[in-house]
Amino acid sequence: MNGSGAQNPAAIRVDIALVHYPVVNKNGERIGAAITNLDLHDIARAARTFGVSTLYVVTPFQDQQALYREILEHWLKGYGARYNTKRRQALSLVHLCHDLAELYALAEAKWQQRPLVLATCARPQDGIFSYELVRERIGRGGSILLLFGTAWGLAPEVMEKADGVLPPISGPGEYNHLSVRSAAAIVLDRLLGGRER
Amino acid sequence: MNGSGAQNPAAIRVDIALVHYPVVNKNGERIGAAITNLDLHDIARAARTFGVSTLYVVTPFQDQQALYREILEHWLKGYGARYNTKRRQALSLVHLCHDLAELYALAEAKWQQRPLVLATCARPQDGIFSYELVRERIGRGGSILLLFGTAWGLAPEVMEKADGVLPPISGPGEYNHLSVRSAAAIVLDRLLGGRER
Repeated sequence: MNGSGAQNPAAIRVDIALVHYPVVNKNGERIGAAITNLDLHDIARAARTFGVSTLYVVTPFQDQQALYREILEHWLKGYGARYNTKRRQALSLVHLCHDLAELYALAEAKWQQRPLVLATCARPQDGIFSYELVRERIGRGGSILLLFGTAWGLAPEVMEKADGVLPPISGPGEYNHLSVRSAAAIVLDRLLGGRER
Repeated sequence: MNGSGAQNPAAIRVDIALVHYPVVNKNGERIGAAITNLDLHDIARAARTFGVSTLYVVTPFQDQQALYREILEHWLKGYGARYNTKRRQALSLVHLCHDLAELYALAEAKWQQRPLVLATCARPQDGIFSYELVRERIGRGGSILLLFGTAWGLAPEVMEKADGVLPPISGPGEYNHLSVRSAAAIVLDRLLGGRER
């Protein structure tokens, strides 16, 4: 069942970044969020499933970087790597960045061109790129960097500097408070998932 | 943006069940899995976003039921309910069941008819119902109960007793080890998500 109807795996040039700073809290104030173990696991597993190249984890905080290294060490080299090789395959996609400037520099160096940077947000925004448009662009080999915010989402200055934004994920009603783990899974499925529905 | 293009909220008769027993471990042995706090949060938030009526949590283990009640108490009545009302709205969908017999009895009593019971599995199975077919059925007001397994998935006897199974979620390659949180989010988006893509 796998593979058919999805994007061509060899041509996919999609990275995602999980941003912990700058993001906002529920009052809209700029904060730095803590790294959440299950964010790394869930989003890395979805990234590996959908053919994403790198999952960048962006945090400038040294204690959070130490936590990040501890988690990755366990699953890439420690007991976790032997216990669950599938988890190792997923977490091997993860790469730490100190800030957005480093993220953009790394992404540009990797693809030898500046990727199209698309933010995600639970609220409607200007500069929408439809999922179908981005899916086609991925199919033509375009390089894409998707930004996901932790806490209550990406800070306004991150949104403004992106090239565009993906439409918010909506259901039948007004409630749309998905976890970043769920939102990332759905976005990747919409852009890269198999089409036998 | 919300609401348009999705299913008619008033007509949706979809429940989901997160099954902790009987499921299998990575060696295919029948086990009971522990309740995971973030499973409840993430899947309840996705359920609320996509118009699901009830999220049943199935476990026969008394210590797990006690943990379940502690989590729900905090978010429905304790500090969590005041701190984050959106979380309360999501977790108010959750209902505890002791076993699958109780689950099926509750679901049938609720809709006054036996719902179509569809299992989910990461591996291809017989008895596939396509996402489009189930989406149409939901749109016509059909009642549906979706089963998700924790650990390494639903035990074979659960699969066999279901009316059918949804196709596994695939990306461009062979790797498809999504968390149950990610899988549930994607399945709900495919069945109930807005169609402006």
